Amino acid sequence: MSAKIPALVVDRVSPKAKQALDLVAKFVEEECIPADPVLEAQIGSGESRWDHHPPIVDELKAKARKLGLWNMFLPKGHYKESPGYTNLEYGLMAEWLGKSRVASEAVNCAAPDTGNMEVLAKYGNEAQKAKWLKPLMEGEIRSAFLMTEPDVASSDATNIQLSMKREGNEYVLNGSKWWSSGAGDPRCSVYIVMGKSDASHKDPYQQQSVIIVPANTPGITIHRMLSVYGYDDAPHGHGHISFKNVRVPASNMVLGEGRGFEIIQGRLGPGRIHHAMRTIGAAERALEWMLMRINDPSKTPFKKQLREHGVILEWVAKSRIEIDAARLIVLNAAVKMDDLGPKATLKEIAEAKVLVPQTALTVIDRAVQAFGGAGVSQDTPLANMWAQIRTLRLADGPDEVHLQQLGRNENKRGKEVTQKIVGQKQKTEQLLKQHSVKKYEPGMNIKARM
Amino acid sequence: MSAKIPALVVDRVSPKAKQALDLVAKFVEEECIPADPVLEAQIGSGESRWDHHPPIVDELKAKARKLGLWNMFLPKGHYKESPGYTNLEYGLMAEWLGKSRVASEAVNCAAPDTGNMEVLAKYGNEAQKAKWLKPLMEGEIRSAFLMTEPDVASSDATNIQLSMKREGNEYVLNGSKWWSSGAGDPRCSVYIVMGKSDASHKDPYQQQSVIIVPANTPGITIHRMLSVYGYDDAPHGHGHISFKNVRVPASNMVLGEGRGFEIIQGRLGPGRIHHAMRTIGAAERALEWMLMRINDPSKTPFKKQLREHGVILEWVAKSRIEIDAARLIVLNAAVKMDDLGPKATLKEIAEAKVLVPQTALTVIDRAVQAFGGAGVSQDTPLANMWAQIRTLRLADGPDEVHLQQLGRNENKRGKEVTQKIVGQKQKTEQLLKQHSVKKYEPGMNIKARM
Amino acid sequence: MSAKIPALVVDRVSPKAKQALDLVAKFVEEECIPADPVLEAQIGSGESRWDHHPPIVDELKAKARKLGLWNMFLPKGHYKESPGYTNLEYGLMAEWLGKSRVASEAVNCAAPDTGNMEVLAKYGNEAQKAKWLKPLMEGEIRSAFLMTEPDVASSDATNIQLSMKREGNEYVLNGSKWWSSGAGDPRCSVYIVMGKSDASHKDPYQQQSVIIVPANTPGITIHRMLSVYGYDDAPHGHGHISFKNVRVPASNMVLGEGRGFEIIQGRLGPGRIHHAMRTIGAAERALEWMLMRINDPSKTPFKKQLREHGVILEWVAKSRIEIDAARLIVLNAAVKMDDLGPKATLKEIAEAKVLVPQTALTVIDRAVQAFGGAGVSQDTPLANMWAQIRTLRLADGPDEVHLQQLGRNENKRGKEVTQKIVGQKQKTEQLLKQHSVKKYEPGMNIKARM
Amino acid sequence: MSAKIPALVVDRVSPKAKQALDLVAKFVEEECIPADPVLEAQIGSGESRWDHHPPIVDELKAKARKLGLWNMFLPKGHYKESPGYTNLEYGLMAEWLGKSRVASEAVNCAAPDTGNMEVLAKYGNEAQKAKWLKPLMEGEIRSAFLMTEPDVASSDATNIQLSMKREGNEYVLNGSKWWSSGAGDPRCSVYIVMGKSDASHKDPYQQQSVIIVPANTPGITIHRMLSVYGYDDAPHGHGHISFKNVRVPASNMVLGEGRGFEIIQGRLGPGRIHHAMRTIGAAERALEWMLMRINDPSKTPFKKQLREHGVILEWVAKSRIEIDAARLIVLNAAVKMDDLGPKATLKEIAEAKVLVPQTALTVIDRAVQAFGGAGVSQDTPLANMWAQIRTLRLADGPDEVHLQQLGRNENKRGKEVTQKIVGQKQKTEQLLKQHSVKKYEPGMNIKARM
Repeated sequence: MSAKIPALVVDRVSPKAKQALDLVAKFVEEECIPADPVLEAQIGSGESRWDHHPPIVDELKAKARKLGLWNMFLPKGHYKESPGYTNLEYGLMAEWLGKSRVASEAVNCAAPDTGNMEVLAKYGNEAQKAKWLKPLMEGEIRSAFLMTEPDVASSDATNIQLSMKREGNEYVLNGSKWWSSGAGDPRCSVYIVMGKSDASHKDPYQQQSVIIVPANTPGITIHRMLSVYGYDDAPHGHGHISFKNVRVPASNMVLGEGRGFEIIQGRLGPGRIHHAMRTIGAAERALEWMLMRINDPSKTPFKKQLREHGVILEWVAKSRIEIDAARLIVLNAAVKMDDLGPKATLKEIAEAKVLVPQTALTVIDRAVQAFGGAGVSQDTPLANMWAQIRTLRLADGPDEVHLQQLGRNENKRGKEVTQKIVGQKQKTEQLLKQHSVKKYEPGMNIKARM
Repeated sequence: MSAKIPALVVDRVSPKAKQALDLVAKFVEEECIPADPVLEAQIGSGESRWDHHPPIVDELKAKARKLGLWNMFLPKGHYKESPGYTNLEYGLMAEWLGKSRVASEAVNCAAPDTGNMEVLAKYGNEAQKAKWLKPLMEGEIRSAFLMTEPDVASSDATNIQLSMKREGNEYVLNGSKWWSSGAGDPRCSVYIVMGKSDASHKDPYQQQSVIIVPANTPGITIHRMLSVYGYDDAPHGHGHISFKNVRVPASNMVLGEGRGFEIIQGRLGPGRIHHAMRTIGAAERALEWMLMRINDPSKTPFKKQLREHGVILEWVAKSRIEIDAARLIVLNAAVKMDDLGPKATLKEIAEAKVLVPQTALTVIDRAVQAFGGAGVSQDTPLANMWAQIRTLRLADGPDEVHLQQLGRNENKRGKEVTQKIVGQKQKTEQLLKQHSVKKYEPGMNIKARM
Repeated sequence: MSAKIPALVVDRVSPKAKQALDLVAKFVEEECIPADPVLEAQIGSGESRWDHHPPIVDELKAKARKLGLWNMFLPKGHYKESPGYTNLEYGLMAEWLGKSRVASEAVNCAAPDTGNMEVLAKYGNEAQKAKWLKPLMEGEIRSAFLMTEPDVASSDATNIQLSMKREGNEYVLNGSKWWSSGAGDPRCSVYIVMGKSDASHKDPYQQQSVIIVPANTPGITIHRMLSVYGYDDAPHGHGHISFKNVRVPASNMVLGEGRGFEIIQGRLGPGRIHHAMRTIGAAERALEWMLMRINDPSKTPFKKQLREHGVILEWVAKSRIEIDAARLIVLNAAVKMDDLGPKATLKEIAEAKVLVPQTALTVIDRAVQAFGGAGVSQDTPLANMWAQIRTLRLADGPDEVHLQQLGRNENKRGKEVTQKIVGQKQKTEQLLKQHSVKKYEPGMNIKARM
Repeated sequence: MSAKIPALVVDRVSPKAKQALDLVAKFVEEECIPADPVLEAQIGSGESRWDHHPPIVDELKAKARKLGLWNMFLPKGHYKESPGYTNLEYGLMAEWLGKSRVASEAVNCAAPDTGNMEVLAKYGNEAQKAKWLKPLMEGEIRSAFLMTEPDVASSDATNIQLSMKREGNEYVLNGSKWWSSGAGDPRCSVYIVMGKSDASHKDPYQQQSVIIVPANTPGITIHRMLSVYGYDDAPHGHGHISFKNVRVPASNMVLGEGRGFEIIQGRLGPGRIHHAMRTIGAAERALEWMLMRINDPSKTPFKKQLREHGVILEWVAKSRIEIDAARLIVLNAAVKMDDLGPKATLKEIAEAKVLVPQTALTVIDRAVQAFGGAGVSQDTPLANMWAQIRTLRLADGPDEVHLQQLGRNENKRGKEVTQKIVGQKQKTEQLLKQHSVKKYEPGMNIKARM
């Protein structure tokens, strides 16, 4: 909430945003977190997990809208549909949303809809907006983003091969996608699909396009949902879907053929900050559960409460430091994005993308360890959180890809720093001469052994 | 297999054991691993996961018995029922068993039956053996070990509070247990139960007893099964069970009232080595899957196979080193247990208990990362392996308890090493005098600033 | 320099401070770093390392004063002697100072003088200020802070036992100190000494006092200087000093008898931020040297430059992330200290105290590894930097003490979060009833095995 | 000593070796460790550190010879000069030698002489043996091995470029070497030099030769000694040496022109095991000092001894586990080398080369941290040990080179394991058909959203 905003950014948060932040915090803690197990119970078991919409979500959505908490993710100034928060301000809210499973959807800020709405708002034409953006922003439908493919290394997006062939006024799509998150939801009515429209284009970054595909278009088969560790994430789900001669009106093409890379790059920046801040929230919640456990008077191995045992308070302290550092890294990216836009913020976003999930996994795993058996089970939110966040080290490119890019980027300074250091050494030589001194070196008077 | 036995122990493995090891390896790789998904398919979905016995298990058991692979876990010489392998020899076999989900049961070496059979073979009387040990050793029934409780910190076993009250020729049991692994299996007909028979005994290590409880005794309720990172582990399961006035014949008491600690301590040593060696096998299998992935010619992000990318071969190399070191730690414990018995081997067992799961988790997580999305999903064995092994950092006492004990044990040398070092310093002073030299200290001639 | 100020704080840096920051950066890179080996050469070898003052320091001091770079450490508003920079602003400058050995002294911002000047400015009376603060602020003399003792665990300052007994108008001091950094310098003319003035005071936090002791007072013996991984740090040095009936005028007592704790606590906050920011600067310099090395065309093991090898760019990237996160942690502490004072900032300072040295050591060690043999030798600044910074994990209290305090502090939320979570669980139960749903649990329909 | 030999190898140690091991242990603890500070005192300060031989060494050598402890490193059976110990047996002794600075030299088992003696014993002709091997084995002279060069990336030995040109009956050497360890010693009379004798040979592994160079040959200049962190390692030293038209008789060529690689590969295997076992010894000694410190009754921060504080016993326990695992890795390599020779043991040696120094550095750094200021200073052996062992991560190739080789080697199994796993998957498909079951997949009945 607003009282906990780090010193470093508190001046940059508007009174309106502070108010909204307090509302979000209260809504999450008092309404959403208690509702999470109700959501799970309403989802049910077995096959029925995939065939209905749990009513608690709509109740919460109604409450949220009444509170004015709706679509806060849409960045200020970029879109007329935005409620007017900066990336920093929404980032602070997203931390709270990340503490609850249902919260993001309740305020219509859930992935992948957020990214898809940004794509449509930023790149869609008016007809596309009217047909798809409007119901998404109203929370009437949901959507999926179909990019990753099972048969190639799609962490390098140039490898994506679902084919999109123009035939008259239509595009014909053939291929397979997986990790199509959200595709399990019965309300998921539209897919934003990335595919190869011109395999022979000499620029590999212009071979790909993004097109809008209604989920009920003939030729689409949902084969199954992928599990995450043992969780199926129903009804949302992570779809494995095939396209066989799927025909889509050419007017569904977003921005124009060959502009797929342009679109996905614009899509990823803010989304990564949202993910990162939600992840910070999850880590904070894990720390809170851990604090509860280590102070539980009924759990006293060897006659001491857990908090009195060896390493436990050190785990708490390290978690505190690591979360605080990770949060500042994300907020710094958010502020820079607010000031200079996503392109200028690539480094900072990549830093957050890599640092935050690893931090949160470490914190959550400590909490699991403090809980013992309960930690890995359904009796705490910890195991599920861990599994969800573990995927963030892979989603939108594995850590290693981002580290390579960061490394290459930093290494561009190589020539400049070399020249600087060489210059400094030359200056040293001049100074040594000028002052008539010589560097002392051990053994410099030995000369040779005779 | 026998060709891969580490140099350090190869001389200590009998020809018979080498032959059995080769058979185990072949059986696991060619029969069990391919059968694992069949087992999962036969278990099915929804409620039915808990109500039947998958037939593939019995097919494999028949094959294994024909090959002479049965009950190899029972240590040589300790029990007349033993097939005659040392802990070292069975340890080498257990590594292979750990690569497959079904393998341990197929050769009747699955936990918790192994520990329970050891308890009955070591501490049971003839009647108990005839009634329970025999069918377990024949693989006709299964069993569970009920020790952990939900309401106390049972990592300190003195906290266990399920009450066992003698009334006439019966004990009456009241209380709750959880993490009763195997209790979900419809064939699980007997529980070995730890509980408090004399809460007022002045020695807290004599308050607990172990008693045999038929699973169908009235008053027992199985409430649910605990999940492990989303996996239910059906039909085996991890039961949450309550006892309400459960009456058991007094003749079911094992070894005698108040001897519970003696029994569980004897039970844990070899079991920890089994777990550790199976875990090594899982880590080896994860490494193999990783090797498959990084050499997959269809997965070429940024025009290179994964094996050509940055850190991947370093992950492979580190995994190789870490697995090899962890294996030697376990084998050293097994050899010492063979030579000097479990009591003399507490340190070595604790070392294995702590080191091996952490090593395997690291290796498996690298493999997950190399696979990307497939790594966390049902399409590789990795995510499930990781979840299973994560529990080993908690089961039979969390790492931290074992580290504290190891630390305290090592610290017993404190006085002795202090005396030695003090003596060495005195000798140095004598020598300095004797040789008329003085230690040079920087700045020793400054004396004071005037 | 000012162009590199993180987005998060750039608005809080005044134009004057930006200008000064640019001057500092230029002065360090162009004057100080080239002068560092000259300083070392002027210090010389053998005994003479302790007996003279290297003239390059005074040349640089003259240049710095001309540039207006002098005493920037003294926080704005707190002292009339301050040049008017905030902790944030000086922190940004200190990062640059940390890149050079001589820089801090050249701008009269070197420890331990900075802390000692703060003590005198904050707690000294006018006579004390005139006699000691003035020449220190003019850079005419140097000082040492004598707190740590060889014979006790002085990380807990209540253990400090150098005795201060009042006799008439004097205090008589007896005892030993070590790690008296700066005491080797021939210009070091004054010691700020912590000792026990009233061992029988019932409040252990009022037993200690701080007194000013001229370095040439009879009874003081400098026994030797302690080395740091082989470095003697001459002529500065880390003194091991004894006091035998050292008599000091009672008017030298700072603030009053028994107020030692109050003084040292006020002293440590800003100093820790200075240390931390200098350490960030050292890490940045190590990264620059590493970039030079990995792009050196003459160093091509296995036909590739180092930057093309496996893990090297990942080391660069991780170093970038870790340094950036650590810097934000320090800046956040600086800002909070500016806004709310040191007492409100204890948590943030402790976070910086723990995180920054560990981060820098990791980065520097990677650079050492990239350099091979040159990295551990006198041919790069890396080994010396590493050794200096390694002491920061011990100085002003070892990491573990700070982690315990942070942990205890965070744990104070234990009760509050427990209540919150318990409340959330109760709300869940209400909601489940209200919506007439029941949590699904695996195996919940088994009931019992019959 | 013999009572502490790990269970895994105790059967492979001969009674004679056990006896020698006990003698070594006693000699190191009672004679060598107390003599280490005497050695340092006799070395003295300033320039004189390089000009004389400390007499304590010769006293100890005399004692050692009397005890029969001499040249134990020379492996059994390989050379007639060997005292007859296996690599395993000498490895166990080397652990003790590693606890003291002077011990290895006292028993004539000090690097680089050991490797040089092996080269001469294995590859030298009779004349070379008579002239150089004999006095080395008698401990009359010392030697250096000149391989690493300052101007190239000599971790890839094909880059070595000191030129050796045949002119008549002589070779003429030109070039530079550094990290020529031992070259500072006034008794160092011979260099074993690696250089390029045929830069145009098409096989880069036949361009290099190894030649014997008397240290007093004209044209050799010792420029200086390299420091390790702040230690100069006098009088041994790490020389930076140049060769200008240095003329050596052609009969000094070892084994023949172009056979340099063959020689250095034979040289490195056992040497790495020696280094590794000495490093284990250093780690054990660090752990002993740590045990002394944490039980020191005069060091009680916050009213508790260090051993009672938070993480300390966990540090002890982890150190115990890590040292034990690392030792087993080395002993496994030693046993395999004994059984199958160095070529078959490349993997095991590389594992030891990488794992052991990192382990020891971790253990020593924990001990430093436990000691506080004393840990980094001259008052404990810890800081010096750390610095020495830090170089082992670079010497004989940095960790990263060995990890790459290990990774590549392990990756050779890629094809084989892929075929195995593919085969297992095919078998699974057959079994599923045969048993008429289908894998259950979550969401498999969704098909498509209409």
